[in-house]
Amino acid sequence: MSRIPTPDLSALAAAQARQQQLTKPAGSLGQMEDLACRLAALQGREVPLPLTPAITVFAGDHGVCAEGVSAFPQEVTGAMVANFVHGGAAISVLARVNQARLEVVDAGVAASLDGLPIVHAKVRAGSGNIRREAAMSAAEVQQALDVGRNAARRAIASGATLLIAGDMGIGNTTPSAALICRLGKYSPEAIVGRGTGIDDAGLALKRQVVADALARVAAGLDGCGVLAELGGLEIAAMAGFYLEGAAQGVPLLLDGFISTAAALAAQAIDPAITPWFIASHCSQETGHQLALAALGLTPLIDLGFRLGEGSGAAAAIPLLQQAIALHAGMATFAEAGVAGKN
Amino acid sequence: MSRIPTPDLSALAAAQARQQQLTKPAGSLGQMEDLACRLAALQGREVPLPLTPAITVFAGDHGVCAEGVSAFPQEVTGAMVANFVHGGAAISVLARVNQARLEVVDAGVAASLDGLPIVHAKVRAGSGNIRREAAMSAAEVQQALDVGRNAARRAIASGATLLIAGDMGIGNTTPSAALICRLGKYSPEAIVGRGTGIDDAGLALKRQVVADALARVAAGLDGCGVLAELGGLEIAAMAGFYLEGAAQGVPLLLDGFISTAAALAAQAIDPAITPWFIASHCSQETGHQLALAALGLTPLIDLGFRLGEGSGAAAAIPLLQQAIALHAGMATFAEAGVAGKN
Repeated sequence: MSRIPTPDLSALAAAQARQQQLTKPAGSLGQMEDLACRLAALQGREVPLPLTPAITVFAGDHGVCAEGVSAFPQEVTGAMVANFVHGGAAISVLARVNQARLEVVDAGVAASLDGLPIVHAKVRAGSGNIRREAAMSAAEVQQALDVGRNAARRAIASGATLLIAGDMGIGNTTPSAALICRLGKYSPEAIVGRGTGIDDAGLALKRQVVADALARVAAGLDGCGVLAELGGLEIAAMAGFYLEGAAQGVPLLLDGFISTAAALAAQAIDPAITPWFIASHCSQETGHQLALAALGLTPLIDLGFRLGEGSGAAAAIPLLQQAIALHAGMATFAEAGVAGKN
Repeated sequence: MSRIPTPDLSALAAAQARQQQLTKPAGSLGQMEDLACRLAALQGREVPLPLTPAITVFAGDHGVCAEGVSAFPQEVTGAMVANFVHGGAAISVLARVNQARLEVVDAGVAASLDGLPIVHAKVRAGSGNIRREAAMSAAEVQQALDVGRNAARRAIASGATLLIAGDMGIGNTTPSAALICRLGKYSPEAIVGRGTGIDDAGLALKRQVVADALARVAAGLDGCGVLAELGGLEIAAMAGFYLEGAAQGVPLLLDGFISTAAALAAQAIDPAITPWFIASHCSQETGHQLALAALGLTPLIDLGFRLGEGSGAAAAIPLLQQAIALHAGMATFAEAGVAGKN
């Protein structure tokens, strides 16, 4: 039986009724109205409270980089983790601006990150090359899921009421594409994109690598089995983070391509998670919109981001806070003495 | 000769060069990168300063309401002005959340608003019915432009470095549609929409009203002449607000349909204003995207808003602030010791 609760439909109905009474033409705040009502359902309150966001960035390396699928060398993963904690990365800036707790977790970086002020939870030093072998063992999937679950517990214990998982892992659009193809039933042509910026030849190679990985793996695997074959250490940790967040009744704000691949894996493990996901942005990465569609989600913004780290989700935090502020702070027609539509 | 300065192209080039050095794949922050560079050009600084936004909502009534073009009665204009100052309207909430100065100006509301703590600058008590007569005289256009110019001066004197004009005026999507048709060279079928929510019969009537207004007005009028025939008092004031803001070198964040109509009128008066406009959102109102296109602008967000008041622009403030924070706060590859693309 699932540990994940069901959103509160009576709070949803109350929030929807409140929206009809606020001093504006019905529907004139568009997606902000839906967002406020969804957050009402997830918080179980007609008027949701302002959000306390927490961002956890999971880092891992990918054996498939040996195939030449990324424009950046694998050492960048560790260097960027250092950049996160020194405050110079995009997610560092966005966490500060949005007053979000930021934690960085080494779930499987190839290099040693000893001495950096991060959470050291390396399951193994980089995944297997999914073109030719499993990303990790079944036991390692469970360890990585637990790394993510523990991170969600820490974030929630610190007061978080909105969870964002970010990723850092050179090469990780390749396993993410493989997961989205398998779990969303899409072809590599529809899903594989340029990641951090490969050229046409690189894109053709990457599609072949994903096709080979998919061909290597038997049909009929469960969510954990698919993660073991096609996933990555940080991706499995993100799935665990989402599963624990939803189990504790905390909304999950998705980021981009890697985050959505992890969300599909989490959904394959426990379908009750689905209503706890909120889409933030539509990534520039080919196939992200299809991955979101497989979860039944529509993104709030489309600014052409393709960075990862949780950056697109973090950039959308103010939209959620504003949706709640409008829902909570606007007067009703009756309170304001304004005549409704004639 | 125009009083409006030219944006600083050397600051633009310096900002674009800086973007290439920040610790992310080039282009991976999408529109946020362009936005930071545009703000650099408008502020004349490689690294723009955080914005101090000010919102001025201009209110006016419209004689064309006698034709039955709106779903709400005209008295709602004054009632909503009271709601703004009492803090219960959407724009009241969004101004608070975004720490923006909020001022409300009566440029031409039909009812007396005596006693409300707003700027009382009524040019006349509602415009003429543009289906059958001019909206206002040439002298009234100048008065209304000055109402807006004075509001921009007050906002800038208070420290504003980003100006938002909002509108409140039952029926004002009708003159706005007429202005966009005339100034953007579009047909009423392409531009006229449902405003606050009229039905199919109302939409057909509104298209005819706009077509009749356009047919009534001679070709070859200048910007002020078009405002006199087809505009509205709050719309002319918004145009004046934009013209003075640009003359003082302050970026102008557009809102929705009415705001963009006012921007087109301001552009007709002084084409040098164009680079000072930044588009915020794409309104649900039919024709807004075409109106923005006539200014060469692409909106940042599309959340299905169709409220006016400056609400769409206010909701986008955090995106501008985040674009600046990323541009200013991210480390360069050299600073972070991260290897670039191989």
